[in-house]
Amino acid sequence: MIGEKTKELLLANEADLIIPAENVATVLYNHPLEHALLVLSKVGYNQIPVLDSDDRLVGLISLSNIVNRMMGLTGFDVKLLENLTVADVMEVNVPCVAENDLEEILHLLVNRPFLPKIDQNGVFCGIITRKEVLKSVNHLVHQLEKEYVLLAKAPLKNHA
Amino acid sequence: MIGEKTKELLLANEADLIIPAENVATVLYNHPLEHALLVLSKVGYNQIPVLDSDDRLVGLISLSNIVNRMMGLTGFDVKLLENLTVADVMEVNVPCVAENDLEEILHLLVNRPFLPKIDQNGVFCGIITRKEVLKSVNHLVHQLEKEYVLLAKAPLKNHA
Repeated sequence: MIGEKTKELLLANEADLIIPAENVATVLYNHPLEHALLVLSKVGYNQIPVLDSDDRLVGLISLSNIVNRMMGLTGFDVKLLENLTVADVMEVNVPCVAENDLEEILHLLVNRPFLPKIDQNGVFCGIITRKEVLKSVNHLVHQLEKEYVLLAKAPLKNHA
Repeated sequence: MIGEKTKELLLANEADLIIPAENVATVLYNHPLEHALLVLSKVGYNQIPVLDSDDRLVGLISLSNIVNRMMGLTGFDVKLLENLTVADVMEVNVPCVAENDLEEILHLLVNRPFLPKIDQNGVFCGIITRKEVLKSVNHLVHQLEKEYVLLAKAPLKNHA
């Protein structure tokens, strides 16, 4: 469990924690794979959300997913992407968050560069990134002992 | 400045913070670009360090760097990588750390997925990743109010 004061410091800029959907590059699941490659190379991110036509999150697609499909017996070939769509290579069953549950977010971000946020209908709302969380962590660790005296609960050991 | 007790909690598993060079995939600056593409697609990372023949860090190369060079006038073409080496597309002047300076690490990781660590001769020692730092952050935020009572220094406002 994360203590209340710790949470308060971490969430001081909670409004900035989520990058809203309108500012996130996405592709549709039925887009041609070469289109997704173009989008990914333009936006400069390694991985972006995949939506259906009702804006529901259905997966994530990364440059790795696409480049792996370009590998033929004699080397890489973009022609191998022909007739493939985003749905053919995207990662599904991606962990999402529905609420700003700090414990869950910090736990899941250990293994993912970002977390999609969805509403109760599965509609994509935005992403929570390691970048924004690390900004909050910087705030926490710099403010903590400025704002609080930390009194050890257990008998003092070597941190007097 | 980060307080001493905060640092102690963050560095409780300091030994795990750095992934040593022998466990990190790298390429040489004079490798053909298609070889780097192969390595990147195999390792599943978006970006890896580039070394010279004396193991000194000279840059980073990412899938994006390579895919962008594959973009021709009529679409993507792997042939455009022919005769190019890693040095032609790698990112140079990459921020590195020489010591485990926690403030610097947490600051730089806001904008980078990982930080290369080098010794005084520029030799690549390993990387510090957001993943490992976020593990430490999880330890910090969960232990903080278990181990310490936080007494507000300023007059109490709404966090009684």
